[in-house]
Amino acid sequence: MKNWLKLLSGSLKLLCVFGVLTATVPVFAEEAAAEAAPAEAAPAAPEIDEDLAALQATHGPAFDFFTVSNLWILIAAGLVFIMHLGFATLESGLCQSKNTVNILYKNVFIICMGVFTYALWGFNAMYPGEFNGWLAAGSPIGTYEGDDLTFAYGGTGLAMTAFTDFIFQAMFAATAATIVSGAVAERIKLSSFMIIATLLVAFAYPITGSWKWGEGWLDAMGFYDFAGSSLVHGFGGFAALAGVLVLGPRAGKYVGGKVKPILGHSMPLATIGVFLLFLGWFGFNGGSVLSADPGLVSLVFVTTAIAACAGGLASMFVSWALIKKPDLSMALNGILAGLVGITAGADSVSVWSAALIGALAGLIVVFSILWFDKVKIDDPVGAISVHGVCGIWGTLAVGIFSPSEDITFTTQLIGTLSICAFAFIVSYVLFFLVKATLGIRVSAEEENEGLDIGEHGNEAYPDFGTAHK
Amino acid sequence: MKNWLKLLSGSLKLLCVFGVLTATVPVFAEEAAAEAAPAEAAPAAPEIDEDLAALQATHGPAFDFFTVSNLWILIAAGLVFIMHLGFATLESGLCQSKNTVNILYKNVFIICMGVFTYALWGFNAMYPGEFNGWLAAGSPIGTYEGDDLTFAYGGTGLAMTAFTDFIFQAMFAATAATIVSGAVAERIKLSSFMIIATLLVAFAYPITGSWKWGEGWLDAMGFYDFAGSSLVHGFGGFAALAGVLVLGPRAGKYVGGKVKPILGHSMPLATIGVFLLFLGWFGFNGGSVLSADPGLVSLVFVTTAIAACAGGLASMFVSWALIKKPDLSMALNGILAGLVGITAGADSVSVWSAALIGALAGLIVVFSILWFDKVKIDDPVGAISVHGVCGIWGTLAVGIFSPSEDITFTTQLIGTLSICAFAFIVSYVLFFLVKATLGIRVSAEEENEGLDIGEHGNEAYPDFGTAHK
Amino acid sequence: MKNWLKLLSGSLKLLCVFGVLTATVPVFAEEAAAEAAPAEAAPAAPEIDEDLAALQATHGPAFDFFTVSNLWILIAAGLVFIMHLGFATLESGLCQSKNTVNILYKNVFIICMGVFTYALWGFNAMYPGEFNGWLAAGSPIGTYEGDDLTFAYGGTGLAMTAFTDFIFQAMFAATAATIVSGAVAERIKLSSFMIIATLLVAFAYPITGSWKWGEGWLDAMGFYDFAGSSLVHGFGGFAALAGVLVLGPRAGKYVGGKVKPILGHSMPLATIGVFLLFLGWFGFNGGSVLSADPGLVSLVFVTTAIAACAGGLASMFVSWALIKKPDLSMALNGILAGLVGITAGADSVSVWSAALIGALAGLIVVFSILWFDKVKIDDPVGAISVHGVCGIWGTLAVGIFSPSEDITFTTQLIGTLSICAFAFIVSYVLFFLVKATLGIRVSAEEENEGLDIGEHGNEAYPDFGTAHK
Repeated sequence: MKNWLKLLSGSLKLLCVFGVLTATVPVFAEEAAAEAAPAEAAPAAPEIDEDLAALQATHGPAFDFFTVSNLWILIAAGLVFIMHLGFATLESGLCQSKNTVNILYKNVFIICMGVFTYALWGFNAMYPGEFNGWLAAGSPIGTYEGDDLTFAYGGTGLAMTAFTDFIFQAMFAATAATIVSGAVAERIKLSSFMIIATLLVAFAYPITGSWKWGEGWLDAMGFYDFAGSSLVHGFGGFAALAGVLVLGPRAGKYVGGKVKPILGHSMPLATIGVFLLFLGWFGFNGGSVLSADPGLVSLVFVTTAIAACAGGLASMFVSWALIKKPDLSMALNGILAGLVGITAGADSVSVWSAALIGALAGLIVVFSILWFDKVKIDDPVGAISVHGVCGIWGTLAVGIFSPSEDITFTTQLIGTLSICAFAFIVSYVLFFLVKATLGIRVSAEEENEGLDIGEHGNEAYPDFGTAHK
Repeated sequence: MKNWLKLLSGSLKLLCVFGVLTATVPVFAEEAAAEAAPAEAAPAAPEIDEDLAALQATHGPAFDFFTVSNLWILIAAGLVFIMHLGFATLESGLCQSKNTVNILYKNVFIICMGVFTYALWGFNAMYPGEFNGWLAAGSPIGTYEGDDLTFAYGGTGLAMTAFTDFIFQAMFAATAATIVSGAVAERIKLSSFMIIATLLVAFAYPITGSWKWGEGWLDAMGFYDFAGSSLVHGFGGFAALAGVLVLGPRAGKYVGGKVKPILGHSMPLATIGVFLLFLGWFGFNGGSVLSADPGLVSLVFVTTAIAACAGGLASMFVSWALIKKPDLSMALNGILAGLVGITAGADSVSVWSAALIGALAGLIVVFSILWFDKVKIDDPVGAISVHGVCGIWGTLAVGIFSPSEDITFTTQLIGTLSICAFAFIVSYVLFFLVKATLGIRVSAEEENEGLDIGEHGNEAYPDFGTAHK
Repeated sequence: MKNWLKLLSGSLKLLCVFGVLTATVPVFAEEAAAEAAPAEAAPAAPEIDEDLAALQATHGPAFDFFTVSNLWILIAAGLVFIMHLGFATLESGLCQSKNTVNILYKNVFIICMGVFTYALWGFNAMYPGEFNGWLAAGSPIGTYEGDDLTFAYGGTGLAMTAFTDFIFQAMFAATAATIVSGAVAERIKLSSFMIIATLLVAFAYPITGSWKWGEGWLDAMGFYDFAGSSLVHGFGGFAALAGVLVLGPRAGKYVGGKVKPILGHSMPLATIGVFLLFLGWFGFNGGSVLSADPGLVSLVFVTTAIAACAGGLASMFVSWALIKKPDLSMALNGILAGLVGITAGADSVSVWSAALIGALAGLIVVFSILWFDKVKIDDPVGAISVHGVCGIWGTLAVGIFSPSEDITFTTQLIGTLSICAFAFIVSYVLFFLVKATLGIRVSAEEENEGLDIGEHGNEAYPDFGTAHK
């Protein structure tokens, strides 16, 4: 008797599955049930959510491709998120301990402000649907419903829901300001920085973003920037350059024509930062595939890793030859240079081109860092070289190494210069205006004492007494 | 002509699929094989595991939905795992360097003990299948086999294997004790803490858990707590309050009616902790969807992130206004407050409700921390405010902001108070009994010298000499 | 005409889905197709990439299983990557602050060199397709195309693209040298270490790897090592032993017949390291399933976690009993011991066997560490005990606990001893040759002053003055 009941319930369950799949072919439902009974040998299928089942019935395997792609982009968003911890630890590690609380505070502020303003304005400014002019206008994201949550939103090309699309891009947006944060560290007034960073992330970054990713004029021209060598890193690097020029160098850095190195206070923190950035870049580049396409995502992982490693090795050996010592911070910046360099073309160059792009980035970054110091542009963490200079290099490299004939060196040059120039000019104006009104730099005493005490009334390591000052 | 060829090749490809899928229907297999031969043009499909093929044949796309969902919950378990590192670094960063080894040891113990006792007792006590009464009884998890490892275990609602179900929940369980760990830090006897933490995680936490997630009386009443604002954070926060009341404040904290701040020894460690907790929360909330449902998981990612950022911003500005300084630890606790606040309703409120819930949590946590200090309840890391007070707020907020009419403010109030009261009372009794028998507090000398030397005979930073004491 | 073709092709696709679901009710397939046409009412499916669509049409659900599996292995590669940060922080935390830059530099070098040389030589040496003899020969990885990027590469058994296969294994490869790095820390010459590490990773590691995973003689014999208790950890541990024997102990460690402990400089760093290693191990073991098979991956997550926790608990209690103090570094090494122990059999033992294997590993590691100190083999981080000794234990444990009759204790013994002996002998020769030519050890003055100043001219914590020396 029990067996009969089991058989019956099993059949009903199977019927259920059939119901879903033959919903549009009602004639069959009955017959199917009748025939389904002997299928008992197979494990019983539990009930399926009706909505889910409907989607599956419509899209077949594509639905699952959508589900896994959507999941991947969410995980990638998490990986890009952790890059913000990477920046926070890298920047504080490469600065003095007396400015650590200040740097951490800025980074905590940036992620919170970045995600929030991107929801309020940036996302819809950057991805307007239709390109809305050179100066993009945005609006708050909606409370997505219906098709925004299904395969219909982006198909297999942008295989994610509207929410996923937003959160992935929101994690990117904050990066631009984070790059600036490191370059202007140890001397900028906190409140002034917070205002500038907000304006940059909320309004300036989405503009250049829309030029390419919002299907604007650079996109129409054939410009290619896969995950943002120019749109994210070039932008951040040249905004940083503007800030540093307006601010001037830290006190005591260039004294009597000589460069006096100001050492970072914790190399473990800096190293943690670079490893986290490397990890996060798998999401930054890998997620930019915008689906879980097996061939493409795996290619991107390999080109990204190979370029990073080649960059690290190149800068290790070059800096060793130049400075006569194996320098850890150069090694770290070499890895980052390789990562920035491959970002524009991670999906469209071969593994060995990626190695070359990365190695050249690792070489460039060493000379660039030394050169900026020579011309007394004081960038405590090397952000201008890593993100700005190597961002340009990476963008041009796609024009050189991509097998596609649609991508030309000239277009790449126009694109990267436009983006970097826009970032530089807007930032210069912003920094200049804030300097003229609110003031941009802490007092000489505060700079000497440290911004932690001056701005926050708090030390990063109070237990270690005054030994570290 | 071309079209005809395309059609032909398409049909042959389809035939190929049939070849795979009718392997178990021998009548067809032969015919299929006969027809499949010319399909050679298409890439050869490698053999598929027989078991896998059987599952796929039965469940179609649902099988892959199960596979990706199961994977997501495993990854989410990894993300919740890393929250334990977040707690370890946050707590040690916000305490003095002389107690660092002790805090780390406690956190290492908690994750090991938590997962292990949850396997031995907790999981089956909390998820009994059928609610087994107010005081849940458990038993060791089985060596799952057969249906426990397939779609049959949970279908599309609980789309994971029994092992996945266990490991995800095990990572949650240890959290309750970790929250307590921070609040009682710098003065509790190690062995006494270890005993209390074990009893809390193994026996007390699964009881309230079963009231809701084990389909108990709170569930029957319509109480809603998506990922545990009350069941995890409220529980931990009020267990912490009980511990702090029994223990009393740290020596030197409240002297002559004044609050003397005892500063954390490493703000980078504390910041690392909060970023890791933020990251882990994507798994904590996102995994609580219990499948990879694209719409729901992406909504949860966005509400979680927005609430965290709103919480951070709110507490930054409020504390700046109140204390007149931009305070990093308030900013960090604001992020956590937003996260705890959204946990109960991350899947059922809109993005802008999430922003409001988070912002209010960020506001509440500032006032709560200041208030607890005023009434001389000494919580070194703010755990009672972050997890206890904001846990209650988050649970009530679902009653306010959820569009569902099934969730009422009254039920939410009854639920959260029941859980927090149970946690408080049981913990108070436990702490009290241990105090009366084994003793709960280290000696005044040991507290002064630090628990690292006193309990472990070891310093956290021996190289830095005595400069940090 | 076009419409007719479209309808026809649409019907055939639907037929495909039906094929899956009606495999057991073949009678329906035809009728279903006929009726499917009016299904137009369902939400419109966006266009699918043609390539993607072709794949889906060919492989049906297996295609999505492939997509999700491929994604999982890429994420697992990311998790194994972060183990390198785990090693970097663990090793530097357990060593003195004056050698921190040196340790970090070595770890940064190893990951860059490891991935790069594995692409140039190692991968094709280790996975030759056909076993190419006891001394494997390699060549650069190709620029994979066509079938290498599809289901055809590995089917459901090795469900990933060729790029994914490479990057996952590349992250493994570098581990071998990282294990050595910790054991020889605080006294080895940087350039000599870099040469030896390169030779080990690029040439020696792939040889033993090919014996088993390249389908070589150990594989033919029935030897089982799921994720590398012997092939990775045993290899690294015994290479480390060779290095330590050639180098000798650190100055001041064994003075007048007594063991003078040289304390690690940062227990938070060490703890961060172990948590990251624990997290990464979910990818190390979980990814070694080589697909997203729900039952198997979830089993591996649970056995891995339970063994780690059992190892941690066992070593906490045993070391407490032996040393009379709760020792944090023993607890940390106990977790790692449990993880190394379960690595060989994570997919083939039950949960409770895993607990026993882990607990015994936690016990063994305590005695092993104490014993090596007794015989004056100076291993600053316990790498020989954790990876070498527990690697052997884990490999043997599969022979004891696996229910499979194909895996015998004898074969496991032969396998692990062969691998460890090969690693030891090759490394001994390498270290010896380098010692005889370039020199292997820094000068006594440099060792005393610290390698950071001596090798790098750089301190890890310059702000903290000389207080830490």
